[in-house]
Amino acid sequence: MVSNADCVFCKILKGEIPSFKVYDDDHTYGFMDINPANAGHVLVIPKYHAPNIYEIPKDWVSDCMITAQKIAKAVHEVTRPDGINILQANGEGAAQSVHHFHIHVLPRSNDDGLKMNWELVPGDMDEIAALAEKIKSALA
Amino acid sequence: MVSNADCVFCKILKGEIPSFKVYDDDHTYGFMDINPANAGHVLVIPKYHAPNIYEIPKDWVSDCMITAQKIAKAVHEVTRPDGINILQANGEGAAQSVHHFHIHVLPRSNDDGLKMNWELVPGDMDEIAALAEKIKSALA
Repeated sequence: MVSNADCVFCKILKGEIPSFKVYDDDHTYGFMDINPANAGHVLVIPKYHAPNIYEIPKDWVSDCMITAQKIAKAVHEVTRPDGINILQANGEGAAQSVHHFHIHVLPRSNDDGLKMNWELVPGDMDEIAALAEKIKSALA
Repeated sequence: MVSNADCVFCKILKGEIPSFKVYDDDHTYGFMDINPANAGHVLVIPKYHAPNIYEIPKDWVSDCMITAQKIAKAVHEVTRPDGINILQANGEGAAQSVHHFHIHVLPRSNDDGLKMNWELVPGDMDEIAALAEKIKSALA
């Protein structure tokens, strides 16, 4: 694994910071966003530290997107949302907050009025933990 | 190519509807969004008709995302935005308007205040054509 000592997502990959895991394979890791824009919001990261889509080798992009597809199907099954966005942010204008490439799997409701740069609000940890278990089961 | 006679993106792929092409390979096609959320907004589609991320085979997802990465680099070089979002929408809640899987490469500015479900407003065709040429050149 190519890692960066100061990166919060690298720390999650090394188990130095806890996370609500839903998926794990040789190249990618899926876990709950603890500041969910909506219930069932999951992040997919590569086991390779690169800040953004400009700098990450393409095979990691591909692996992450295939994992995002698997997770989108599971999140769709579990939360039955009105829609799902797959979103990836690069740079300040896209409000990228962690500079380790990541893909959001983001359930939507018809009336959520969500902005591209949504406000980060901590979610209910018990609810997030319960959803993580359901999504993990749907992926198994 | 797996095609759908009623699909506007399939018609673009068949040349039945014109488009501002920026990229073309065996599996994917990139062209300007004529209702750009911001200048330099590009769409990537697979040469395979599937409505959404739930139903499209994973190799097409992967191919589209790798093309989106190439295009993001070119759009970044050409428009020098404050950020870029890679976005893919599924279902009514995500305001998916064309039911052929597609990925948005969407330049951002710090103050655009963009919503996830932005309003579709036709762009200036001359400006779009000029940007298409620049992005195509950056991809060559």
